[in-house]
Amino acid sequence: MGRITARRRVTRIRRDAAPTQRADTLAVEEPLEIRVGGQQLSVTMRTPGSDFELVAGYLVSEGVITAGGDYSTARYCAGTDSTGANTYNVVDVSLAAHVPPPAPGVTRRNTMTSACGVCGKDSIESVHIASAHDPATDTLTVDVDTLLGLPDRLRAEQEVFDKTGGLHAAALFDADGELLVVREDVGRHNAVDKVIGWAVLADRLPLTGTVLQVSGRASFELVQKAAMAGIPLLSAVSAPSSLAADLADDLGITLIGFSRGESMVVYTRPDRVVAADSEPSATGS
Amino acid sequence: MGRITARRRVTRIRRDAAPTQRADTLAVEEPLEIRVGGQQLSVTMRTPGSDFELVAGYLVSEGVITAGGDYSTARYCAGTDSTGANTYNVVDVSLAAHVPPPAPGVTRRNTMTSACGVCGKDSIESVHIASAHDPATDTLTVDVDTLLGLPDRLRAEQEVFDKTGGLHAAALFDADGELLVVREDVGRHNAVDKVIGWAVLADRLPLTGTVLQVSGRASFELVQKAAMAGIPLLSAVSAPSSLAADLADDLGITLIGFSRGESMVVYTRPDRVVAADSEPSATGS
Repeated sequence: MGRITARRRVTRIRRDAAPTQRADTLAVEEPLEIRVGGQQLSVTMRTPGSDFELVAGYLVSEGVITAGGDYSTARYCAGTDSTGANTYNVVDVSLAAHVPPPAPGVTRRNTMTSACGVCGKDSIESVHIASAHDPATDTLTVDVDTLLGLPDRLRAEQEVFDKTGGLHAAALFDADGELLVVREDVGRHNAVDKVIGWAVLADRLPLTGTVLQVSGRASFELVQKAAMAGIPLLSAVSAPSSLAADLADDLGITLIGFSRGESMVVYTRPDRVVAADSEPSATGS
Repeated sequence: MGRITARRRVTRIRRDAAPTQRADTLAVEEPLEIRVGGQQLSVTMRTPGSDFELVAGYLVSEGVITAGGDYSTARYCAGTDSTGANTYNVVDVSLAAHVPPPAPGVTRRNTMTSACGVCGKDSIESVHIASAHDPATDTLTVDVDTLLGLPDRLRAEQEVFDKTGGLHAAALFDADGELLVVREDVGRHNAVDKVIGWAVLADRLPLTGTVLQVSGRASFELVQKAAMAGIPLLSAVSAPSSLAADLADDLGITLIGFSRGESMVVYTRPDRVVAADSEPSATGS
C-alpha cells in the first residue's frame, strides 16, 4: 500500500533570520488509474489510502453505479514499477452482471456537452438525467448549533492535515451530528468520492438524511457528487460557485457556505436548517 | 461575454440570532469546451473571462503548443442556448500550419499511464518528455523580502475574490518583484493556465527569469504547468504535495510553500532564494 505522507529535507526562511534546514512532512500525491473490466476509465491524482472507496465513489459520481449491489469486486492490478514492486496505483473493478460497462475512457464529464452552445444549464440537466435519487423530497432537518459545529469537528478528525497542512477533508454526519465517516485527500473531489465510496461498499446508498461537510469551497462538481449519492445537505467552510448554487437549487439540495463556527450562509433550501428549539428558523425575518 | 459574478438571495444565520435575508455575490462557474480545428479536446469548469488566454495556456500545459507562433487564431463557436443567445462557452482554436493537431479527446493527462504499474515516477517522466524547456539551468535569483511580499501583493490584486471569497489567483512576477500579470478563476489550474496563456499570446514563452505565485496549494499539476511554460520558480501560500516536490526536484524548479509574509519553506533549489544583500542565504543554516 502506498504511503500517505513523505519526509523531505527543506529550507525554512524567516524574514531577518538565517535560513534553517529541517525535515518536513508532505502529503503524498500519486496517480490512481481506475479500470472497469480491464478497460481504463480514468486517472486521478490522489493520496493513497481508501482506494477501493475512492473508486466506488467515483463510479457513483460518474453515474456508472447507483447502489452497492452494482459493484462486484475490486482488486489492485499486478502492475509493477521499475524496481519490480507493485505500485498499488491501478485498481480494476468488476461490475455486477446486470450493470452495463461504461464505454472505455468515456466519463460523463467528457460527454455532457451538447453539439454546440454548452452552458451551465446543460451541466445541470446532465446531473438531473444521471441521478437516480431525488434529494428535493428528503425530510432532513438539522439544528443550527449542530451545523455550526461541524467544521471544527471535521478539522479535529484530520490526522494527516495536522502533519502536512496539505489535505482536504470530507465527512458525513447524520441529522443529530453523529459522525459516520471522514476521509482526507490532496484533491477535495477525491475526499468526497472516498466518503461516498465508503457508503457504497456498506450498501448505504442513497444517503438520505445525511449531511456532507467539506473543508474547502463548494464547486459544481461537489454538489453533483452529493446529488449522485442522494445527499440532501452540503456544507462548505468556504464559498460556493454560482453553478454550485444553481445546481443545488434545481435539485432541492440545501447548500451552506462560509460555515465558520459562529455564522454560516444558506444558499438554497434553508427550510432544512432549524433553530435549537426545533422551530423552523431560516424563513424568519 | 459571460459574467464573472452573479447575485443571489441568501439566508445568513448567526449563532443565537434571528436569520436574515440579503443579496450575496457569487463567483461564476461555467463550462468551457475547448476545440482544436473543430474537434473537442476538453471541457473545463471555469470563471468566464480571459477565455482565449485560458485555452492558449491549457494547450501549453498539455504539450500541444510550445510557443506563440504555434497558435494561429481562436474564436467563440457560434453556439446558442435555448434562448438563442451565444453562450460564449465554446472556443475553437486554429493551430499554425506546422503544428500537428492533437488526436480528438486525447490529452496528455489521459495518456500518461503505462500499460501497468502507473506511478509518480511515470508522471514525472511524462512531463520530462513533453517539456521543451529546461528550467534547471535558469539563472534567476530572487530576494527573500521580495518573495515574502508576493502573497500580499497577489491578494491585493484579487478584485473578484473581494466580492465573492470564491476565487483562486495566480500571478507572474519578474526577478525584481514587478507584476507582469494576474488572473483569477474558481479553478486554480485555470488561473495558472490563464497566466501562461497571457504569456503565449504575447509570445513571451519560455518564461525564463519569472516567478509564479499562487493563492492555494501546490499540486503536481501546477508544477507541471510551470515546467511546460519554462517557469523556474513556483511559490504557493499553502502546502505542496510530495509529487509536486518530486517533480520540481527532478526538473530543477524552485518550489516554495507556506509563503505567509514572515516566513516560507523552500522545498527544492533554495539557491535561487538570496538574502537582501544578494549573498546566497538559503544554503546556510
